[in-house]
Amino acid sequence: MLIVQKYGGTSVGSVDRIKNVARRGASTKEMGNELVVVVSAMAGETDRLLNLAYQITDTPNERELDVILATGEQVSIGLLALALQALGHKARSFTGSQVKIQTDRSYTRARIMSIDADRIRQALREGEVAIVAGFQGVTAEEDVTTLGRGGSDLTAVALAAALNAEVCEIYTDVDGVYTADPNVVPEAKRLSRISYDEMLELASLGAKVLQTRSVEYAKIHHVPILVRSSFVESEGTYVLWEDKAMERVVVSGIAYDKNQARITVTRVVDRPGVAAKLFGAVAETGIVVDMIVQNSSQDGFTDISFTVSKTDFQKAYEVIAKIAREIGAGEVLGDDRIAKVSIVGVGMRTHSGVAAKMFDALARHNINIMMISTSEIAVSCVIDAKFAELAVRVLHEAFQLGEGRG
Amino acid sequence: MLIVQKYGGTSVGSVDRIKNVARRGASTKEMGNELVVVVSAMAGETDRLLNLAYQITDTPNERELDVILATGEQVSIGLLALALQALGHKARSFTGSQVKIQTDRSYTRARIMSIDADRIRQALREGEVAIVAGFQGVTAEEDVTTLGRGGSDLTAVALAAALNAEVCEIYTDVDGVYTADPNVVPEAKRLSRISYDEMLELASLGAKVLQTRSVEYAKIHHVPILVRSSFVESEGTYVLWEDKAMERVVVSGIAYDKNQARITVTRVVDRPGVAAKLFGAVAETGIVVDMIVQNSSQDGFTDISFTVSKTDFQKAYEVIAKIAREIGAGEVLGDDRIAKVSIVGVGMRTHSGVAAKMFDALARHNINIMMISTSEIAVSCVIDAKFAELAVRVLHEAFQLGEGRG
Repeated sequence: MLIVQKYGGTSVGSVDRIKNVARRGASTKEMGNELVVVVSAMAGETDRLLNLAYQITDTPNERELDVILATGEQVSIGLLALALQALGHKARSFTGSQVKIQTDRSYTRARIMSIDADRIRQALREGEVAIVAGFQGVTAEEDVTTLGRGGSDLTAVALAAALNAEVCEIYTDVDGVYTADPNVVPEAKRLSRISYDEMLELASLGAKVLQTRSVEYAKIHHVPILVRSSFVESEGTYVLWEDKAMERVVVSGIAYDKNQARITVTRVVDRPGVAAKLFGAVAETGIVVDMIVQNSSQDGFTDISFTVSKTDFQKAYEVIAKIAREIGAGEVLGDDRIAKVSIVGVGMRTHSGVAAKMFDALARHNINIMMISTSEIAVSCVIDAKFAELAVRVLHEAFQLGEGRG
Repeated sequence: MLIVQKYGGTSVGSVDRIKNVARRGASTKEMGNELVVVVSAMAGETDRLLNLAYQITDTPNERELDVILATGEQVSIGLLALALQALGHKARSFTGSQVKIQTDRSYTRARIMSIDADRIRQALREGEVAIVAGFQGVTAEEDVTTLGRGGSDLTAVALAAALNAEVCEIYTDVDGVYTADPNVVPEAKRLSRISYDEMLELASLGAKVLQTRSVEYAKIHHVPILVRSSFVESEGTYVLWEDKAMERVVVSGIAYDKNQARITVTRVVDRPGVAAKLFGAVAETGIVVDMIVQNSSQDGFTDISFTVSKTDFQKAYEVIAKIAREIGAGEVLGDDRIAKVSIVGVGMRTHSGVAAKMFDALARHNINIMMISTSEIAVSCVIDAKFAELAVRVLHEAFQLGEGRG
C-alpha cells in the first residue's frame, strides 16, 4: 500500500519531534507499505526567515522571499532523512524542484500545474522512504516558488494524486474532525468519516483542521485524506467522497467563526446594478466578502447586509460609506461583535426541516438571529458574538451529535 | 567591466552587514560595471545547521548533510537581493543548482566539473546584479552538493573564469596579503600584488587569507584575484601570474605555522621500501604529512623526521611506533612544541644565497633549526615554537620587507 504522510511545523518543531516522526514513518514502512513523507518547516523557522527579510525591507520582492522561505522545508527534509536512516531505513530527501512540482509564477501563493513524480517512484522502487519538502514548487524557468498558506497539505494531496496513493495522512495537533470544537462542547465526538463537501464547509466556516485548497484538490482528484494526531494514537477522521451512510446523517458538525463583522446599508434603491456597484468597490480593495443578504424590496428600497473578516472591517466600512453616499442610500451600520454559527451535513440535501429545527433551537435559548444564509449542505446564522459558544452547544444537543455516529 | 565579488560569512553576518555589502555592490554597479556577487552563509548559520544534524545522528549521511547545509547560502542570496533592490537596483538570486554549477557526487567536498553561466549572462544583459550562492553545486542527477572548506571562494573564482570576468574580488576581514602577520610584525606591509605560486605557498604555510583550492583554480584559469576588506576601504592585494617586477623581489612574505608536530624515527635501516612502509601506514589513516626530512645515511642507518598537524600528532605517533617496532628501528621521538617558519618569493628562482641568509639571521638570534625543507620558491625551517614570533620578526627585518615594495 502506497501512503503519503504529511507532518506540519509543530510535528517537526524540534529534533526530538523529528525523531518521533521518523519512528512513526518507520513503523508504517515496517508494516510493508511504500511511504512518501511531506514535511513543513520547523515551527518558528518561517517566522524567523520572514523577520530577517522584513528587517531588510518593508516590501520584499516575492521571488526572493520564496527563495528565502523555501529553505525552512529544505532543512526539515534533510533532518528527517537523517532520522529515518538512523533507525536503519533507507530514506532520501527531495526539494520541490527535485520532484518537479511545477507551478505558475505567482510567487508566495503559486498554483501547482503539474508533478513529475518519476524520481519519487524510482526511490520507492529502491525501497527508500521519499521525503519531500512541502509548501514549495518550481517554475518552468526553475525559479523557486511557495504555495502559500496551507501549502504543505496541498503538496501532500497533490503528490498522493500524482502517485495514485491509497491515502494521504495529514498529521496535525488534533486527532481528527469533531462534531464541534471540543473546547466548547465537551461531548463533541470525533467523526470517523466526513465528505469533502462537508469538510469544505467546516473549513471555510472556521474549523482549522485542513485548508480549503487541499480539500478541493483532494475532492477533484479523488484522494482519500486521513486527519490524525502526530502526538497521540488515534484512528483519525477520513475525508472522502460521500456515500449512502453519510447521507443518512442530517447534520455532521457545528462550526462557528467569531472573526466576522457585519455591515448593513439601509434604504438602498432597488435598481439593477446597485449591488454590483457596492460589492465591486469592496472587491477592488481585495477584501473578501463572506455572507451577503438582501431582503425583498419594500416600497422600492431594500437593506443589504454582508459580512467580512474582522481585520477588513474598518476598510470595508469606509469604502461602503463612500459608495452609499454616491447612490443616495440611507444609513451604513457596522457591527464587529458578531459570530457566525453553522450546521453542516450532506444529509440536508434529502432531509427537510433542518433549518427550522436550527432556528427553533436558537430561539428557545433567546438567541436572536441577525442574518441567515444557506447552501446545499449548510445553514449559517449570524448572532451576537457573546452567544456563540452557547449556540454551538445548543445546536450540538438539538441535533444529537454527542450520540450515535462516530 | 565585469566583476565578481565574494563576501564571506562574517561580511554577511547580520542584517546590517548585508545592507553594507549591498551598498558596496551598488557603488560598484553605479560605476558602470556588470556585477556578480557570491555570498556565504551568515556567520554561525552553518554551525547551527550542523548542530541540528548531529543532534539527530553522529554519522549523518553526506547527501542529506549537503541538502541541509546548502540552505545557509540560499538565505543569504535572497536577503542580499532584497537589500540591493531596496537601494533601487535590479538584482536576482541564484542557487548553485539554478546556475548549473555542476559537480561530481563527492558530497561535502564536491569538485566543480562545469558551469553553465547562461542564466547569469542573461541577468547581466538585463541590467541585473546576479547574486549567487557560494559553496554549493548540483550533480548531473540534480542532487545538491557542497564544495567543502573555502567553497565560496572557489565558486567565485570558477564563476569569474566561466564569465571571463575582469577580476574576482574576495572580500574578507583583512585588507590584503601582508609581508608577515601584522599582529606579530607591526611593520609588516600590505603587498599590492603577489603571484599565484607565492600565494599558494603562503596559504599552505598558514596564512589564512585564501584557500589553496581557489588559488589553484584561479592560476589554471588565469583569473586575477583581488583580496580586500569588506569593513575598511583599502586597495587590497592582487593575486596574479608573476611578472618581471615580481621576480626582482627575492622574498615576498614570511609565514609561520604553530599547528605542527614533529615525529622522528631514529636508526632506520637504510634499505629501499622502508620509507614507503612508514609513510604508507600514516597515509592509510588519512593523516596528511607536511615536511619530510631524511638525512644521508651513516653506517647503513638513517634518521627520518616528518611533521603533521597537531591534531593528528597522537594518532600518527601510535601508527609510526608500531611500524618502527616491525622494521626494527631505534627510538620514535615526538615533539608538538614546534613551529614552521617560511620565507616565500618567486625571486628565489633567480637569486642565490637566500636560504643561507635565512639560516644566518636565525643563528644570530640563537634560534636553533630542527628541520629544513625547500621548494622552488620557499624555504621552511622547523624551530622551537616559543621562538616562532621572534623568528618572523628577525626574518622580516633581514629581508627588509618593511621597506620599499608596497
